[in-house]
Amino acid sequence: MTTIMKPFKTLTAAAALSVLPMAAFAQDAAPGFDEIGPYIMTTLLFCMAGFLVFFMAAGFAMLEGGLVRSKNVTMQMTKNIALFSIAAIMYWLVGFNTMYPGDFNGYFAIGGQTVLDAVGVSAADAALDYASVGSDFFFQLVFVAATASIVSGALAERIKLWPFLVFAIVLTGFMYPISGSWQWGGGWLSEAGFSDFAGSTVVHSVGGWAALAGAIVLGPRLGKYTDGRVNPMPGSNLALATLGTFILWLGWFGFNGGSQLAMGTVGDVSDVSRIFANTNMAAAAGAVTALILSQVMFKKPDLTMVLNGALAGLVSITAEPLAPTLFGSLWIGAVGGVIVVFTVPLLDRLKIDDVVGAIPVHLFAGIWGTIAVIFYGEASLGTQLMGIIAYGVFTFVASLIVWFILKAVMGIRVSEEDELTGLDMSELGMEAYPEFSKG
Amino acid sequence: MTTIMKPFKTLTAAAALSVLPMAAFAQDAAPGFDEIGPYIMTTLLFCMAGFLVFFMAAGFAMLEGGLVRSKNVTMQMTKNIALFSIAAIMYWLVGFNTMYPGDFNGYFAIGGQTVLDAVGVSAADAALDYASVGSDFFFQLVFVAATASIVSGALAERIKLWPFLVFAIVLTGFMYPISGSWQWGGGWLSEAGFSDFAGSTVVHSVGGWAALAGAIVLGPRLGKYTDGRVNPMPGSNLALATLGTFILWLGWFGFNGGSQLAMGTVGDVSDVSRIFANTNMAAAAGAVTALILSQVMFKKPDLTMVLNGALAGLVSITAEPLAPTLFGSLWIGAVGGVIVVFTVPLLDRLKIDDVVGAIPVHLFAGIWGTIAVIFYGEASLGTQLMGIIAYGVFTFVASLIVWFILKAVMGIRVSEEDELTGLDMSELGMEAYPEFSKG
Amino acid sequence: MTTIMKPFKTLTAAAALSVLPMAAFAQDAAPGFDEIGPYIMTTLLFCMAGFLVFFMAAGFAMLEGGLVRSKNVTMQMTKNIALFSIAAIMYWLVGFNTMYPGDFNGYFAIGGQTVLDAVGVSAADAALDYASVGSDFFFQLVFVAATASIVSGALAERIKLWPFLVFAIVLTGFMYPISGSWQWGGGWLSEAGFSDFAGSTVVHSVGGWAALAGAIVLGPRLGKYTDGRVNPMPGSNLALATLGTFILWLGWFGFNGGSQLAMGTVGDVSDVSRIFANTNMAAAAGAVTALILSQVMFKKPDLTMVLNGALAGLVSITAEPLAPTLFGSLWIGAVGGVIVVFTVPLLDRLKIDDVVGAIPVHLFAGIWGTIAVIFYGEASLGTQLMGIIAYGVFTFVASLIVWFILKAVMGIRVSEEDELTGLDMSELGMEAYPEFSKG
Repeated sequence: MTTIMKPFKTLTAAAALSVLPMAAFAQDAAPGFDEIGPYIMTTLLFCMAGFLVFFMAAGFAMLEGGLVRSKNVTMQMTKNIALFSIAAIMYWLVGFNTMYPGDFNGYFAIGGQTVLDAVGVSAADAALDYASVGSDFFFQLVFVAATASIVSGALAERIKLWPFLVFAIVLTGFMYPISGSWQWGGGWLSEAGFSDFAGSTVVHSVGGWAALAGAIVLGPRLGKYTDGRVNPMPGSNLALATLGTFILWLGWFGFNGGSQLAMGTVGDVSDVSRIFANTNMAAAAGAVTALILSQVMFKKPDLTMVLNGALAGLVSITAEPLAPTLFGSLWIGAVGGVIVVFTVPLLDRLKIDDVVGAIPVHLFAGIWGTIAVIFYGEASLGTQLMGIIAYGVFTFVASLIVWFILKAVMGIRVSEEDELTGLDMSELGMEAYPEFSKG
Repeated sequence: MTTIMKPFKTLTAAAALSVLPMAAFAQDAAPGFDEIGPYIMTTLLFCMAGFLVFFMAAGFAMLEGGLVRSKNVTMQMTKNIALFSIAAIMYWLVGFNTMYPGDFNGYFAIGGQTVLDAVGVSAADAALDYASVGSDFFFQLVFVAATASIVSGALAERIKLWPFLVFAIVLTGFMYPISGSWQWGGGWLSEAGFSDFAGSTVVHSVGGWAALAGAIVLGPRLGKYTDGRVNPMPGSNLALATLGTFILWLGWFGFNGGSQLAMGTVGDVSDVSRIFANTNMAAAAGAVTALILSQVMFKKPDLTMVLNGALAGLVSITAEPLAPTLFGSLWIGAVGGVIVVFTVPLLDRLKIDDVVGAIPVHLFAGIWGTIAVIFYGEASLGTQLMGIIAYGVFTFVASLIVWFILKAVMGIRVSEEDELTGLDMSELGMEAYPEFSKG
Repeated sequence: MTTIMKPFKTLTAAAALSVLPMAAFAQDAAPGFDEIGPYIMTTLLFCMAGFLVFFMAAGFAMLEGGLVRSKNVTMQMTKNIALFSIAAIMYWLVGFNTMYPGDFNGYFAIGGQTVLDAVGVSAADAALDYASVGSDFFFQLVFVAATASIVSGALAERIKLWPFLVFAIVLTGFMYPISGSWQWGGGWLSEAGFSDFAGSTVVHSVGGWAALAGAIVLGPRLGKYTDGRVNPMPGSNLALATLGTFILWLGWFGFNGGSQLAMGTVGDVSDVSRIFANTNMAAAAGAVTALILSQVMFKKPDLTMVLNGALAGLVSITAEPLAPTLFGSLWIGAVGGVIVVFTVPLLDRLKIDDVVGAIPVHLFAGIWGTIAVIFYGEASLGTQLMGIIAYGVFTFVASLIVWFILKAVMGIRVSEEDELTGLDMSELGMEAYPEFSKG
């Protein structure tokens, strides 16, 4: 057995210093953990919650890839990885500082590029009462990507790639950050007392409104609604859809837990754990409710309803995952499950073709969750409705305008022939499952 | 470049306070990190380990979904997401406080609903020598779900959905918490010196015993054993099964690492890391052993044996992942791999049809792991055997009774015709892979 | 509602002590958080980053399993779980202490088995200026597995299982640790000022060189290059390949973030978050660049190029993920995307058959990333080139020798008939998707 020596892996100046924290303390009388501990813990919270929410990009991709037909899977994968990448770039370029502007009139300000803390930032230069810019930026960035993912699911199987990506640019660089600034940037809705802890409205219903506008402009898939009948178009891979749902559920611990925005006190870390427990409960309640309701209403349990029920439970608790008791989270999530089971058929009756159920899950349950805040939080129903309407009107109208422009300028829908062939071969020339013959 | 301002995302009173920790300290002379640091770190440990173990639900779903035939995949997905959700609700309703009762005779106490710490709990009101209730509840909850997942794998492809879920209610709300209280609730086995660090027996063999009882009552799949021959029924998606195994392996770092139950001292955090290293080693050894043994015994390496070998290695080290050296973990895990390769065929010889190998992996390797504690831990063989037998008798008998009642009251097995058709179409009316024609 | 009592789950002496940290402090005048905080945070960083990088094993398996044809998927799964397990054992047996030797001439030292810190190590015995041995070992171990995974992708669909695994033994136990010691073990390259923060060269190009040597010795798949034409052999499951890419992207936050090697100061935790943001940006830029380039060059967006573009972006930023600005990370990652799009066809022109594009992604982008350090780091071009060449010559030559020996001694390639049949049936007798008939 040899002696084990500490590896010295990096040789940058910053890292070299960093492995000698105590020496540094001795020299500089650097601040102790009572001062820097909260900053370290909150920065860690954002990193950890951030990677969990990042992974939701995979969750959305798998959920949507599992719920579309196999001839459109490659396209769905391409859209999802591309929209995440675009969101990452746009949010750096303009989004983050638009959403969290330094000097703000409460309604609108366009920000510039994000600038991180200096390498090896000193305690004196860091925001010791909060967290590092890098961690905050990363955490906020993965939220905006979730919003765009919601849209990609609803519009699957008939939208062209590039117009969709242009919409993603506008949504992630401008629409989401502008409306987000009203609440999380300290703008007028925040001033008015609107309450949306982790984004039932700010993130989920915004994605849902954008998707709804797109679904209306785009129209339903060929053959979806014929002679007054709704023709089911079953998803090609329910194992994948289930995996996606579990990944989203996992990511939601970061989504809601990280939104505590602090982890360095007894109260904060306990609240983060409280949020974990509540979030899990709401998801479970949504799933069980959808399971039972689908048995009662359709005489057969419906897996896709159960998956969407879990997600609706998660969206429902997102506006206030901290204040409710576990029982509160249970019934709030359960109502989310009810909403999904009743509104998925409703959309079909309106001939709005939402391929994966994104609008019921993210928009309808998002509205519900925002209202439910009044039962446990401190917001009033009037204020909550005002916020819901403000986000709805802005996002829906802005989205409609963008979709119409895109339709006029470059067209947003593939040709009938291409749609029947499937987007994978017609648009991309590459099948997702080239060897599995189609039944 | 604009100035970046700290976002103020939430406006709840608790959060507003929480972003000013130092100010709060100054005002209240609040306790410093020497006092609250361990609480914060341990609460974080439970949150982190909790989400890792949560993800094991996806791991079980993918493993089992990959090892059943494609006509039963939707059902397997439905069962797995439903059982997790049921476990979450039952463990809140009664399980957690049954398992960790306040006032306890050492054998049996039924608890009430779980109540979390107050929002923004103060240091004075928190269990500073441990962790927040929310984090502890969440961490324990995901364990019980693992137990139920073990059962779902063994009984796949012929059990009805609803009786299975009723069993899951009983298992997660009552059976597991009652027997769990004997050890982890400070009951009679804990008093007697039984040692099971993270649950080779308390979690895994309990799941295995429940599965064994179910497999016996349920009987084998149609055509599995005919004319004295064992007919292989190959899994439909080994990529998915491999993914599931990797996810379980990942989750096990939380399963075993979190069971250190503390992370706020040098010794504790080092022990957590020691457990990570040992857990990984046991899994690796189990996989390599099964690989080599399957080559030697069957002349062909067998991927499903390798996957189950890794899992058996993990189960084997779960009763004592801290004390062994890395070499100790290697040989303990390797024996787990041996057990799988020899007992999978054994069960078939007994005509006990365990679809995914759950009984060899979780029960047999779980027994082995519990015995192996004597080589590195402080427990005696007698005490370990007593614990193994106590859990076995209680869980097996209670499970048998529940399965027989379910069989008598609602029937537990689908009709022959439905089984041949597959549960997806007959019970759920929804195929997992509707477009991939069956060979 | 019953009173909730703190569970006492384990009864080992260490754990029993650990739940009373404050009492322990009182008795021993143990060091406070100012002294032990950095150790705790860094040990946690390694555990957390370690499980993220561990999960990259699943990412590689899914990526490679999705990009091979369905007749070779079981083999690809077997190789990937086996190589990880072998790496875990070899790195314990000899690798870790070879790479981080205690007494070192700067070029070569063979280490013995890894020995972890004692259970419940005291602050006095721990490396308070760094982290626990267990966490460090675990973190380094998952890196070496990544190197071996790179090789498995490139050589897929025609290499025999056992010679591949023998190569993995040599690579993970000897080649990687020896060359790794030159830089991260404090050897001659580190002395010379070579800079490779998280391993564009030390990990990725090493894997790439080993793969290149193997691809040359092994030769292309049957029918890949005929009559001067390159015949596409499309991957069987692009949903799986996309999942794998997202998992790798997720794991990379641990890969690069953990390589900060410290998290217990304001500067360090901020740097970790800075690395997260930069890593994400480089991946996004690589993906978008490959998307646009594939549209421009091939007239159709190419999902496999987008996936490899993201990965190339990640590899490119790995040599210096800390120092660049977000814009720097963007263009460094974008160049990675360009490299992939141009060099994948180049390899085909050279008739080097790299099934998944591992050589462009890990070797070519790895070289680029190592050079790019000069724009933001402190290294000189000459030193960087010296390091690149040193790793290239050593790894390529050593790999060639090992591959030739394996070829001579046991043969490395399956028979033509077996290759046409597919390795799953011929070598393993087990199909990955037995029910999905092949188109």
